[in-house]
Amino acid sequence: MTTIPVASTTALVLDLAGTFAFALNGALTAVRTARLDIVGVVTLGMITALGGGILRDVLLGALPPATFSDWRYLVVAAVGGLLAFALSRQLERLATPITVFDALGLSLFAVTGATRAAELGAGVGQAVLLGTITAVGGGTLRDVLVRRIPTVLSSELYAIPALVGATVVVGAERLGVGGPLWVLVGAGACFAIRMLGVGFRLDAPRPPGAGSAS
Amino acid sequence: MTTIPVASTTALVLDLAGTFAFALNGALTAVRTARLDIVGVVTLGMITALGGGILRDVLLGALPPATFSDWRYLVVAAVGGLLAFALSRQLERLATPITVFDALGLSLFAVTGATRAAELGAGVGQAVLLGTITAVGGGTLRDVLVRRIPTVLSSELYAIPALVGATVVVGAERLGVGGPLWVLVGAGACFAIRMLGVGFRLDAPRPPGAGSAS
Amino acid sequence: MTTIPVASTTALVLDLAGTFAFALNGALTAVRTARLDIVGVVTLGMITALGGGILRDVLLGALPPATFSDWRYLVVAAVGGLLAFALSRQLERLATPITVFDALGLSLFAVTGATRAAELGAGVGQAVLLGTITAVGGGTLRDVLVRRIPTVLSSELYAIPALVGATVVVGAERLGVGGPLWVLVGAGACFAIRMLGVGFRLDAPRPPGAGSAS
Repeated sequence: MTTIPVASTTALVLDLAGTFAFALNGALTAVRTARLDIVGVVTLGMITALGGGILRDVLLGALPPATFSDWRYLVVAAVGGLLAFALSRQLERLATPITVFDALGLSLFAVTGATRAAELGAGVGQAVLLGTITAVGGGTLRDVLVRRIPTVLSSELYAIPALVGATVVVGAERLGVGGPLWVLVGAGACFAIRMLGVGFRLDAPRPPGAGSAS
Repeated sequence: MTTIPVASTTALVLDLAGTFAFALNGALTAVRTARLDIVGVVTLGMITALGGGILRDVLLGALPPATFSDWRYLVVAAVGGLLAFALSRQLERLATPITVFDALGLSLFAVTGATRAAELGAGVGQAVLLGTITAVGGGTLRDVLVRRIPTVLSSELYAIPALVGATVVVGAERLGVGGPLWVLVGAGACFAIRMLGVGFRLDAPRPPGAGSAS
Repeated sequence: MTTIPVASTTALVLDLAGTFAFALNGALTAVRTARLDIVGVVTLGMITALGGGILRDVLLGALPPATFSDWRYLVVAAVGGLLAFALSRQLERLATPITVFDALGLSLFAVTGATRAAELGAGVGQAVLLGTITAVGGGTLRDVLVRRIPTVLSSELYAIPALVGATVVVGAERLGVGGPLWVLVGAGACFAIRMLGVGFRLDAPRPPGAGSAS
């Protein structure tokens, strides 16, 4: 298997950080939702962490996926899952980490996914969409496997912040001002909008007439 | 990303019509089943509309999928989802549209999916199977995401009409009489069988001895 | 479509045997869990039988998947599904076949999946992981489609025996002693561990503190 080189160290570090955050989130979800054993916990952590990048690379035709040909992703995802398993008791007492890790992974994958798609030749619109799919993909697989309506369909702002983060990065690059700064601005914007959405239980508009019914 | 050219204008028009029908169906399903917000509604519409074609192209190794490299599919799917969101109140009063849009998408994708698979070099059997997968794939993803047993597994005739439609098209082409006429015959046969199945609640045979139990 | 040649007759026979076992298992699951009609039963049998190999080949970038370009897999999967449908009444009286067929498919796919991944150039770790994914993939799709928490997440030892079987085969090959004997040893070890896990309801360790709660 050949490894498609990641453009910069910044991108790689952010991508591995997102992988780690989603592995913690997925593993904690397994502990909390379904009281799974260690294999189930680590498996769900790894699927959550690697799923978005795999979907992106399948849609780009960049196979085998980077998360499979580059061992660092597999190791970081496995370590994150094992760590969450070992520390689940401590982490469970805190109500927020599961949400924060999810928002972190969402924000980091939105920008790194969009960057990677653009590098591999995707157009502006496709790069933004693929960044969003990278961001929401792993969590969607996670929710399907533990039989929840996926967050991307049901929750407070989830796809929209990812779309914003991806747009910032792709837009900056097209305007010739790309670089680590705008990557961080994009990720920061995504994270801020997502956490505001969770904090204030903001929803996107509902269908006309549906609000009164539910 | 390179676009794999679609053989004819007829095929493209029918494919976009199927995409539109499934986008309406998926979005209305989101409104009815889960009372989702606008992002959830449009997302489910787009997944229903694009899922079958993506599965087909992954199985053909024709990546990136046509639905991703050709913007028209993305736009038609998004417009269909937004339209269903805006008109959901009006459309919901009518009981049938959700079923009719599904049958339309099923019929159109069965013939266009089989045609595309044959064009890309699949054998007769594979082309028929890939047409069927294109037809039932999006609806299956839709059902998994809103936690229903997929229609293809549980419902009145669903995979069989798609199989019939795909067989008509591939068979006609192999006999040297392919063309728009047989594409319409295949789609029409699929639509008719599906709607008869829904109307008369016809099921395929059940396991011996199972009928009395349920 | 081109067929990627399978290394040896042994590997092909074992792979088809695993396909057959999973087709019986998936179809019986459809009969028992959801009282599906013949199309649903055969469809679930085929997805269970072919799903793991498709996931493996997508992750390897070996598209179209072998299970699609080689008709023997499709035929064996369909025959297995039809047979289970026809004999479901007889087979249902016996409590164990559904579990045994699953363990057989798991064991055979763990070794053939790992072998195929190694042949296609995957590294040691990736080959072991891809063998495991081949083994657990079809059953995971099956469980998602009938709305169960996947066995790989929830059950007694399931991923671990597959990991052991794949490791034996890849390890033996790397040490230069590969061949049919070690393939059978790997599959046998996987089958034995899995059936012991089912028989004694063994679980992998649970999160600290979770045992007393459940």
